[in-house]
Amino acid sequence: MSVAIIIGSDSDWNIMRKAAEVLREFDISVEVTVASAHRTPARVQEFIESCHAQDVKIFIAAAGMAAHLAGVVAANTTRPVIAVPINSEPLKGIDALLSTVQMPPGVPVATMAINGAKNAGIFAAEILALTDDNLKKKLADYRAEMAQEVERKADNVKREFMKGAD
Amino acid sequence: MSVAIIIGSDSDWNIMRKAAEVLREFDISVEVTVASAHRTPARVQEFIESCHAQDVKIFIAAAGMAAHLAGVVAANTTRPVIAVPINSEPLKGIDALLSTVQMPPGVPVATMAINGAKNAGIFAAEILALTDDNLKKKLADYRAEMAQEVERKADNVKREFMKGAD
Amino acid sequence: MSVAIIIGSDSDWNIMRKAAEVLREFDISVEVTVASAHRTPARVQEFIESCHAQDVKIFIAAAGMAAHLAGVVAANTTRPVIAVPINSEPLKGIDALLSTVQMPPGVPVATMAINGAKNAGIFAAEILALTDDNLKKKLADYRAEMAQEVERKADNVKREFMKGAD
Amino acid sequence: MSVAIIIGSDSDWNIMRKAAEVLREFDISVEVTVASAHRTPARVQEFIESCHAQDVKIFIAAAGMAAHLAGVVAANTTRPVIAVPINSEPLKGIDALLSTVQMPPGVPVATMAINGAKNAGIFAAEILALTDDNLKKKLADYRAEMAQEVERKADNVKREFMKGAD
Amino acid sequence: MSVAIIIGSDSDWNIMRKAAEVLREFDISVEVTVASAHRTPARVQEFIESCHAQDVKIFIAAAGMAAHLAGVVAANTTRPVIAVPINSEPLKGIDALLSTVQMPPGVPVATMAINGAKNAGIFAAEILALTDDNLKKKLADYRAEMAQEVERKADNVKREFMKGAD
Amino acid sequence: MSVAIIIGSDSDWNIMRKAAEVLREFDISVEVTVASAHRTPARVQEFIESCHAQDVKIFIAAAGMAAHLAGVVAANTTRPVIAVPINSEPLKGIDALLSTVQMPPGVPVATMAINGAKNAGIFAAEILALTDDNLKKKLADYRAEMAQEVERKADNVKREFMKGAD
Amino acid sequence: MSVAIIIGSDSDWNIMRKAAEVLREFDISVEVTVASAHRTPARVQEFIESCHAQDVKIFIAAAGMAAHLAGVVAANTTRPVIAVPINSEPLKGIDALLSTVQMPPGVPVATMAINGAKNAGIFAAEILALTDDNLKKKLADYRAEMAQEVERKADNVKREFMKGAD
Amino acid sequence: MSVAIIIGSDSDWNIMRKAAEVLREFDISVEVTVASAHRTPARVQEFIESCHAQDVKIFIAAAGMAAHLAGVVAANTTRPVIAVPINSEPLKGIDALLSTVQMPPGVPVATMAINGAKNAGIFAAEILALTDDNLKKKLADYRAEMAQEVERKADNVKREFMKGAD
Repeated sequence: MSVAIIIGSDSDWNIMRKAAEVLREFDISVEVTVASAHRTPARVQEFIESCHAQDVKIFIAAAGMAAHLAGVVAANTTRPVIAVPINSEPLKGIDALLSTVQMPPGVPVATMAINGAKNAGIFAAEILALTDDNLKKKLADYRAEMAQEVERKADNVKREFMKGAD
Repeated sequence: MSVAIIIGSDSDWNIMRKAAEVLREFDISVEVTVASAHRTPARVQEFIESCHAQDVKIFIAAAGMAAHLAGVVAANTTRPVIAVPINSEPLKGIDALLSTVQMPPGVPVATMAINGAKNAGIFAAEILALTDDNLKKKLADYRAEMAQEVERKADNVKREFMKGAD
Repeated sequence: MSVAIIIGSDSDWNIMRKAAEVLREFDISVEVTVASAHRTPARVQEFIESCHAQDVKIFIAAAGMAAHLAGVVAANTTRPVIAVPINSEPLKGIDALLSTVQMPPGVPVATMAINGAKNAGIFAAEILALTDDNLKKKLADYRAEMAQEVERKADNVKREFMKGAD
Repeated sequence: MSVAIIIGSDSDWNIMRKAAEVLREFDISVEVTVASAHRTPARVQEFIESCHAQDVKIFIAAAGMAAHLAGVVAANTTRPVIAVPINSEPLKGIDALLSTVQMPPGVPVATMAINGAKNAGIFAAEILALTDDNLKKKLADYRAEMAQEVERKADNVKREFMKGAD
Repeated sequence: MSVAIIIGSDSDWNIMRKAAEVLREFDISVEVTVASAHRTPARVQEFIESCHAQDVKIFIAAAGMAAHLAGVVAANTTRPVIAVPINSEPLKGIDALLSTVQMPPGVPVATMAINGAKNAGIFAAEILALTDDNLKKKLADYRAEMAQEVERKADNVKREFMKGAD
Repeated sequence: MSVAIIIGSDSDWNIMRKAAEVLREFDISVEVTVASAHRTPARVQEFIESCHAQDVKIFIAAAGMAAHLAGVVAANTTRPVIAVPINSEPLKGIDALLSTVQMPPGVPVATMAINGAKNAGIFAAEILALTDDNLKKKLADYRAEMAQEVERKADNVKREFMKGAD
Repeated sequence: MSVAIIIGSDSDWNIMRKAAEVLREFDISVEVTVASAHRTPARVQEFIESCHAQDVKIFIAAAGMAAHLAGVVAANTTRPVIAVPINSEPLKGIDALLSTVQMPPGVPVATMAINGAKNAGIFAAEILALTDDNLKKKLADYRAEMAQEVERKADNVKREFMKGAD
Repeated sequence: MSVAIIIGSDSDWNIMRKAAEVLREFDISVEVTVASAHRTPARVQEFIESCHAQDVKIFIAAAGMAAHLAGVVAANTTRPVIAVPINSEPLKGIDALLSTVQMPPGVPVATMAINGAKNAGIFAAEILALTDDNLKKKLADYRAEMAQEVERKADNVKREFMKGAD
């Protein structure tokens, strides 16, 4: 049981490693590859097929500009495809966002925020947790930890503001 | 095992019924309610809790304008939340899209196209099909049927164009 | 020697028939089909291959929303690919434009205006005219006729304005 | 009588301290906390309730990206909620602006400019000055001082320009 | 104690009457006028001065296109100014929104959604309710009624969906 | 002494006649033609030359989409060029606005609002009034009349609102 | 005979000095001041009146964000008003552009490109040249010089490209 | 047989040299010049005429801001015109993109991505390859090399990710 991450260019790895890391943190096994919908269409299809054979459950696809990768993956599988539009100059990812989210009826792509790599990993975990109580517990812990971190930060901001008051 | 659809306003139902219908087509049971993140925040939380109690697996949330509903649902569950930004005048859903997709790290929302209700239903089915081979088969059939419909339409367009050639 | 027009949905035909008609006017033979990058990825590839076999010189691809069709065609051929982003609700074609024009380096797509079907046909003719003096002549005549039409319209506007002056 | 400032992330404090500072300048007491609508929904509600108990008159809420914080606060109070959409990469705050300002009928949020922290403080003071003549006087003085600063700057620019003329 | 509504053009009245009506519903007295920042700058100033004399507490200003009216009012008063950007062709109110919300530091304008007239009225009531317990009660009732309406609509949608299931 | 109005397409005349009419109202003589920067580049140049010969003082150019007409006119004259970007589907004139206003340093084009034909005429009159006291007087009268019309409309709105109060 | 430049903030001077410099280059006398439509509305009016008294022919107004300055100036004069929308973070001047160019019918503002200070100066010169043959000659020389500079740059680019060819 | 590259400003050369280099790589001869549609309209026309005389087959035109250059070239030739909108501050090339791609019917311009210089060169090569089998072979090799580079990068990313797993 695993998640496959496909990135359209190796320059997207800096962003997308956060998806891989969060999955690893949840002990979910991850496949990673670089495959471009435009430069290597055959490679994309071969990778999808090898994933189908290896019982990959979920695909995470990330690309910038005219980001067709997630759509092309979704066209070749009925397993859930999560997409991360990548921010690239000059249009700041708005091109990648619209290219990714505005899929026509019939072939869904679940789109995260621009550069939203971490959420792609968490969302994959949420899907897998539907049938894995251990993972469900980890997700709840992750949320609890986030909440605690917010409390710590609230204390810091409050303290800093009070100091200014003296 | 079911999917809950929450809409922010009853006027969104015209769009969102397509999500419910596609789920019904796949024999997936559906809960539907209207609950506004702003007008009825308590109702949203109660609905989520009742869904947790009833073993709802997936939430689909739809809202327009400053569409906070999906984010508020995601803040209160670790089950997958799929969102449909609703097109409303005058900003044509770009406000709902950005309000929905640009979630901060930690709390993912899987965003579909503006008014992408049908894909929300199909994506929920894709998640459930990971552990339901019967459903997996239905999804494959659905795709095959779509492909056949494209072929029929291609024939029509070609024929119509040829007629013009006489 | 011919031009192939691929449309992502039969609803695009109302717009794209103008490309076909202008090509016909120039006596260029035209292939037309419907094939969706997302709903029928295999059909797209088969069509491209059959076009390669039939000595199609140029592809014109048209799609709306997350318009991946032209990019997918360009990924599978080194022949010129001309793209027409289609205007569809609610984002008015800006999604299709960015999905089409913002291609990454290595795989070009020649993008026309949103709904710019006629120009797609004319641009294909301009390419073919590089080695066809007869066609070159027709293009020059076409321009001359456009210029004359502008003159006629200028007379009408002037006359109408003068009448208002009495 | 006081104003509560809630920020969605401690990284917003750099911007939002200007709201706190301007309020302090007007001798208005300020509560500050960090609470995320998505990561700590319970904390947001508890904070609002404690503010209601302490006679906080006005809420100022600031968040970036899909900025739901102000809307969530407004959903839980009928006291005035002032919002500051925070500029964050890559969409430059346009996501936060639309997520904040496009509230549906019934639950208003008073939106300031992107990063408009200082104006949030001043606007809160303007509300409180409606029943506080001393504060009203301070606001008038603040305006007069701004006007004088503009005059000083006008002199500088004029002088600098004249020097260039020699 | 009253609220003044200034509209930049009489064509804005169709939208802005909702602000006046909601204020009337709350028994708040309302002044209404038409005054354009560009066509009648003197009239705007005279109206503000007469409002100051009549103890108007809050200004609501509405304009479309390059909507300067709220900014011009705010430049001439330190009382709270609430603004409603008006949707007008062809830019759908995005011009009015940015012209209104992006005020520079020092002179705040509290911006509502495009065409958000009702919320402007409610927000004015929220300000006045800070020192009027009767009005505070009415606002709470208004919210409760909205919540009940959502429940009724939820029942309708649910019933309608169930019928489809037979 | 006159003003020349060039429109890129006769379909722009419905909008641009308002520029011609306001100039006529001010007794300024007007030349009108249709000439496309793209379809009839020679015609544009010939028209500019004939205008230079006839002592045309000011050019008003209007076009939609990739609106190059005003820029092309400005490239061929040092007389003031006023531009009206025309609203056309699907991009609502934002394409024409940016194509017109974003002129590079050295060759200015004075841009009016999208479809701002009347203001183009008034602005031309303002230029000519610099050396024509009679025209200056007419402009002042025009402003006074506008102000009176606002007052009449204010009375109507107020009366209508009061009626609702009974 | 002179041109008045009003800037909304002294931070705009870095951009707007280019307008002043180009006017100086053409021996046109220039008045410069800082006056904010929002922080110093009275100062704006006084400056306009003093300009009217001193026979200023043309106003150039520059401001950023919700840029109301040019509109406010135009509301108080019938002399030509040229506007420069200033680029400021985070919206890159698109807020200033729309706030400036989208003026309602009756009160025109001649808008230059975002940060288009030099063109504002040149356009003012073009207006004044209508009745000043000496200035007309200077404008023609300025254009000729620009053209020569382009030729020099073309030589450089060509030479540099040729070197690469060795 | 050659390709002409016209850039609107020498500052565009840094981007556009990539078009020239890729053409050189394919042994296609290249003409390069700087010519501005606005500053040197005559130079643009002379260059086009000299290109027609020298049997230039294809034009590549690049410009920023209100990018009229490609449209002006297309207005004066029936040979294929490929355009590259140049990214420039502050609007990030969206002005250049819309000014370039939104050409009216009759005069096509084949638009590449913002700053898409390399693709302009490749697309020109694809056109010329229609009648040059040697060039066709080079294009196929170029694609194959790109695909191999993606594979190398995929190995690097995978290896790097695996290291992190230890």
